[in-house]
Amino acid sequence: MTEFKFDSKGLMPVIIQDADNGEVLMLAYMDKTAVERTLKEKKTVFFSRSRNKYWVKGESSGHIQEVQQALTDCDQDALLVRVRQHGGACHLGFRTCFVHELDDSGAVVRETQKKVFDPDNVYKS
Amino acid sequence: MTEFKFDSKGLMPVIIQDADNGEVLMLAYMDKTAVERTLKEKKTVFFSRSRNKYWVKGESSGHIQEVQQALTDCDQDALLVRVRQHGGACHLGFRTCFVHELDDSGAVVRETQKKVFDPDNVYKS
Repeated sequence: MTEFKFDSKGLMPVIIQDADNGEVLMLAYMDKTAVERTLKEKKTVFFSRSRNKYWVKGESSGHIQEVQQALTDCDQDALLVRVRQHGGACHLGFRTCFVHELDDSGAVVRETQKKVFDPDNVYKS
Repeated sequence: MTEFKFDSKGLMPVIIQDADNGEVLMLAYMDKTAVERTLKEKKTVFFSRSRNKYWVKGESSGHIQEVQQALTDCDQDALLVRVRQHGGACHLGFRTCFVHELDDSGAVVRETQKKVFDPDNVYKS
């Protein structure tokens, strides 16, 4: 494995991009094990900083991300993973997490997309 | 300004995306002041963790990033900034920093793009 530069907590930010249309879907974190599992299992596995445990994307919702391509940057301290997204990436029900558009003052002025699923149904069980 | 969740060092990861073709160009960090300046001045300003100072993208190279749209995610702990990229985003001479493709073991197997400028010339002065 490449000598990635993980931060002081052993984590690295990972950008998830829709391989089909180029949309940036989300940003999450991986440690070395999560990177290894993501590349081998071909489904994204993150490390949750708030829950302090691994998190297979889609394990509750079924909205998995099939890995199509993974790239690292010039500093090897970040990853870009291109995926085939099932359902929506955002736990609020949007296809992508980055839907909250900011104005020049940094205030959220609108949501750029409509929800593609109802989180109350998807995360109920 | 929205109540962004900066990390313990007061920073937030920021994804820079080409507004024209959707390419993910780079990932860098901003503090509150860098976010404010980026949104108001319409050119990206980052906080360099290694140099511990603000860094106007393109100040040495001329490869500025004109801000077209800024969005935050559902957790408000990351930003996506869509830009018009002049020249190349990567200090190695590539248009994007994410050109180093990984195989299943995490080894870099190829560069997905050719260089668009010679960094020895651009960063010489």
